Amino acid sequence: MHVVVNAAMSADGKLSTRRREQVAISGSEDFERVDELRASVDAVMVGVGTVLADNPSLTLDDSDHVAAREERGESPHPARVVADSHARTPPDARLLDGAADTYVLVAEAEPVEHRESLEAAGATVVVAGENRVDLPSALDALESRGVDRLMVEGGGELIFSLFAEDLVDELSVFVAPQIIGGRDAPTLADGDGFVDDFPELDLAGVERVDDGVLLTYDC
Amino acid sequence: MHVVVNAAMSADGKLSTRRREQVAISGSEDFERVDELRASVDAVMVGVGTVLADNPSLTLDDSDHVAAREERGESPHPARVVADSHARTPPDARLLDGAADTYVLVAEAEPVEHRESLEAAGATVVVAGENRVDLPSALDALESRGVDRLMVEGGGELIFSLFAEDLVDELSVFVAPQIIGGRDAPTLADGDGFVDDFPELDLAGVERVDDGVLLTYDC
Repeated sequence: MHVVVNAAMSADGKLSTRRREQVAISGSEDFERVDELRASVDAVMVGVGTVLADNPSLTLDDSDHVAAREERGESPHPARVVADSHARTPPDARLLDGAADTYVLVAEAEPVEHRESLEAAGATVVVAGENRVDLPSALDALESRGVDRLMVEGGGELIFSLFAEDLVDELSVFVAPQIIGGRDAPTLADGDGFVDDFPELDLAGVERVDDGVLLTYDC
Repeated sequence: MHVVVNAAMSADGKLSTRRREQVAISGSEDFERVDELRASVDAVMVGVGTVLADNPSLTLDDSDHVAAREERGESPHPARVVADSHARTPPDARLLDGAADTYVLVAEAEPVEHRESLEAAGATVVVAGENRVDLPSALDALESRGVDRLMVEGGGELIFSLFAEDLVDELSVFVAPQIIGGRDAPTLADGDGFVDDFPELDLAGVERVDDGVLLTYDC
């Protein structure tokens, strides 16, 4: 599986404010780029924190992209994936609106009734890992269901976990010309953090986009 | 006064690990650029957290820069400034080694004996603000002592405070191609963070430096 992480951050590395309120970080050119990237993958993944904070639909905005996918014999929208160890995705979350397949990755420890209520809401539940989702085996399970290209849209906890498991192939970050600040604001990579053996990336591209810069890395 | 903030961060916006241990973020080309920038200013400022974590000397590395300053009739090294509300700078800190003038900015509430022990160690104590250093008046006090160009080298608490007081004129950030991660790791701008009225910057320069990228902003 090929995993692309895509995010927009402030010049100081924040994905949103300390209140986890979304900030208009990207401009229109970057939105188009992200929609195009979404259109090119089999599934788009977020962590449950992003679902609870932003309630995204993760579907395509541009109907041309939908039409192009359908011409290629693909589903109109890529599938949606939530990394959600404790099955906290609300059954009325927008990404359970039926517009595309939705996988919720949960841990084995989670009570069966939680899984069942997610399935009743239309999700396909994938169980992997004891108390926390085991990402390598969860991604293998997705791959066996046809997800060869996966885009990850955050948040910082999930992105850190993917780097910690060495599962990221590409990282693209739009860096906006603004400061959000905040020692408690979510960053591009949160989690426990590394203290040595930092993942080293190759800076593949540097491009001005909108009034910021898009940095792309091979991982 | 013209204030330039300069920092090196990981691709995810971290200045160091959650243990506050320094990471080799910059390469040799960026080190040279930073030394040149230091040589061009009247004073180099850090927060006391940086003094306690890294014990920097903040003097110039390159003897050519020292010679050039002396030819211009300037001090061999720029002055050093510590924002240190509670006078926690250790009297044996490297930046009290006598190689250059050192100003320690403290709050009025701090006991006089703390100021006196810093002065005995060679510091010039500048008192500004009641319980926390009032940065606008502290910078005014420095300006009246001849500091027209000030470079700020971190950490994230000081940088946030300077943005919050609208005191930053330029920001230059070297973004290294590595991930540090960590929800508790220091970032480029920590503090309480903004929740609205985010400082907007103008992206003035984008340049590949070493294996990363140098972003410069007008603020």
